[in-house]
Amino acid sequence: MKQNRAERILAKLKQMGLSQMLIVDPMSIYYLTGVQIMPFERFYGLYLREDGHHVYFLNRLFHVPEELGIEKAWYSDTDPVMEIVASRMDRERPLGVDTELKAGFLLPLMELGAAERFVLASSAVDDTRGIKDAEEQEKMRASSRINDLAMAEFQKLIREGVTEREAASKMLDIYQSLGADGFSFEPLVAFGANAADPHHMPDDTEVRPGDCVLFDVGCIKDGYCSDMTRTFYFQQVSVEHRRIYDTVRRANETAIGRVRPGVPLCELDRAARGVIEAEGYGPYFTHRLGHFIGLGEHEHGDVSSASTKRAEAGMVFSIEPGVYLPGDTGVRVEDLVLVTEDGCEVLNHYSKELEIIGKGGER
Amino acid sequence: MKQNRAERILAKLKQMGLSQMLIVDPMSIYYLTGVQIMPFERFYGLYLREDGHHVYFLNRLFHVPEELGIEKAWYSDTDPVMEIVASRMDRERPLGVDTELKAGFLLPLMELGAAERFVLASSAVDDTRGIKDAEEQEKMRASSRINDLAMAEFQKLIREGVTEREAASKMLDIYQSLGADGFSFEPLVAFGANAADPHHMPDDTEVRPGDCVLFDVGCIKDGYCSDMTRTFYFQQVSVEHRRIYDTVRRANETAIGRVRPGVPLCELDRAARGVIEAEGYGPYFTHRLGHFIGLGEHEHGDVSSASTKRAEAGMVFSIEPGVYLPGDTGVRVEDLVLVTEDGCEVLNHYSKELEIIGKGGER
Repeated sequence: MKQNRAERILAKLKQMGLSQMLIVDPMSIYYLTGVQIMPFERFYGLYLREDGHHVYFLNRLFHVPEELGIEKAWYSDTDPVMEIVASRMDRERPLGVDTELKAGFLLPLMELGAAERFVLASSAVDDTRGIKDAEEQEKMRASSRINDLAMAEFQKLIREGVTEREAASKMLDIYQSLGADGFSFEPLVAFGANAADPHHMPDDTEVRPGDCVLFDVGCIKDGYCSDMTRTFYFQQVSVEHRRIYDTVRRANETAIGRVRPGVPLCELDRAARGVIEAEGYGPYFTHRLGHFIGLGEHEHGDVSSASTKRAEAGMVFSIEPGVYLPGDTGVRVEDLVLVTEDGCEVLNHYSKELEIIGKGGER
Repeated sequence: MKQNRAERILAKLKQMGLSQMLIVDPMSIYYLTGVQIMPFERFYGLYLREDGHHVYFLNRLFHVPEELGIEKAWYSDTDPVMEIVASRMDRERPLGVDTELKAGFLLPLMELGAAERFVLASSAVDDTRGIKDAEEQEKMRASSRINDLAMAEFQKLIREGVTEREAASKMLDIYQSLGADGFSFEPLVAFGANAADPHHMPDDTEVRPGDCVLFDVGCIKDGYCSDMTRTFYFQQVSVEHRRIYDTVRRANETAIGRVRPGVPLCELDRAARGVIEAEGYGPYFTHRLGHFIGLGEHEHGDVSSASTKRAEAGMVFSIEPGVYLPGDTGVRVEDLVLVTEDGCEVLNHYSKELEIIGKGGER
């Protein structure tokens, strides 16, 4: 149990008028215990209480180290698990709950009268996780360092006749050979018009001359995620595609140039969007500028026009403007940034120069 | 919109006294619409209403076909999405909610007074999905057929010096070469004592003579999942390990022999457990016998001592007894079965004979 992190969370809960919270996000539990478990449909929770009587709810199928410095409440698949959980809560007081808590668990807790009322309190955990300490910062750097090296290998996979799926199928080996533990998310590889869908999954499309080649990829190293997007062009690039690329790249660089403690995150989105709007592509930048990242590849915290937070030293988030022309092309240029005391450190170092790949062995 | 499936769900809701339901499980939405979307942290829902005024809630980032025969309610990342959702519900009546609905969405709906009350109603969807129609049955067969072929390839990966991770890293290519669309879950590969953890993930452990080699693997084909476990032995097998293997295999076959319409699912668990207990390994069979499967690799529905359902024609579930000796070994033998009118069809055909692998090229 990482007491220091638990205390930071409890202090934030206290500011919200809460003395207890039920955390269920496996990543948040890992953050606090160092134990990584995938509970699938089973209940898995860590209950924090201001008096320090924390309880770790575990299915007997889950394996955890003996010594964790926290009380464990074990249950089996045949036990009435929500009754066991409810019996440990302070019924007279409000209970902070994790935004991830499923209705299948929350509604029974409500019926059992497990707390005076139920209050969304993930922000206490998320805001704590959102500020990375020195050890976490070093791990974020290490993960992105592997991602930079991997991108150099990924673009070499794109040769005449290759499909998105074939390229994607080589990526895990490349990451692992570079020391990563796995993907932080399934890699997105999109050629040509497929890149117009920001969530397109690799399929049997073959690359063709003039296609954009978009890689949105990341790995996990020591529990921490990387996430970077680069858009290349196969053999040639049209004048309009070059113009779109330059626009997106300038949007990325403009936003990064504004990152420093105190800047409202919505201003970063505005700055990037302004560059894209000025070129007439505003309607084609269809998503927020970025998201927080750390143990999870999407952590709580937007960098969007709706963001109400300001940047603080220790935050790590993505800056990923894009332009998507349906049926034609898509471009995204994404870096992770770490907010420092007086600006930011860009965690990705792979070049953002427009790069034409697949020219018969040349680079 | 697959009207027939929606009507089967609405009929079950009516039996529960419900006229409306909010479905959020992406697999259930795929089952009804044929559209596959990974919403990550964004809201994604399909609202079913007995009067047929269904509503499909979509973020503007999601891509769906134009013609789906259902009203779409679009929102952007900056919109007050739960207000949009609440405004479409019938506030005077109870609302069925999906067990997967997260507190981050459910508590705001409650605060907005979106319904008279909120009732867990996933069983209406799950029970409908739990009975596969003829088209689905054929897809389940096809997925398991690939899994059988893949298992024959996987065991050939186990040679002197190979690690779990290396073996696992080859599996996606093998599945894809056999026509699968991807994994149904990350493959489990466990050697020796690692197999004592039923959820062990592949690591850098090298195989050693006498190790058990457990593969718990599955693929997706046309949306439908396979899932099979086989346990092999590397180069040699001890007398006790052979005895454990035979016990687990008999438990698997005994349970399969009992599957027919009307049999309580808890009796299947009991039958398998009885075989294992008779050999003195009862305490080491630490999980339920099986789970339902279909579009998801774990669908709602247990085959456990707590199951209250009876088998019905069209159900597909796993039969996967195991014995786990901490620090020593683990064995699991898993097949999928489809309940037929007068018994069951075993969807897996890979041999369950104890097989010693890695003997210098012999088989």
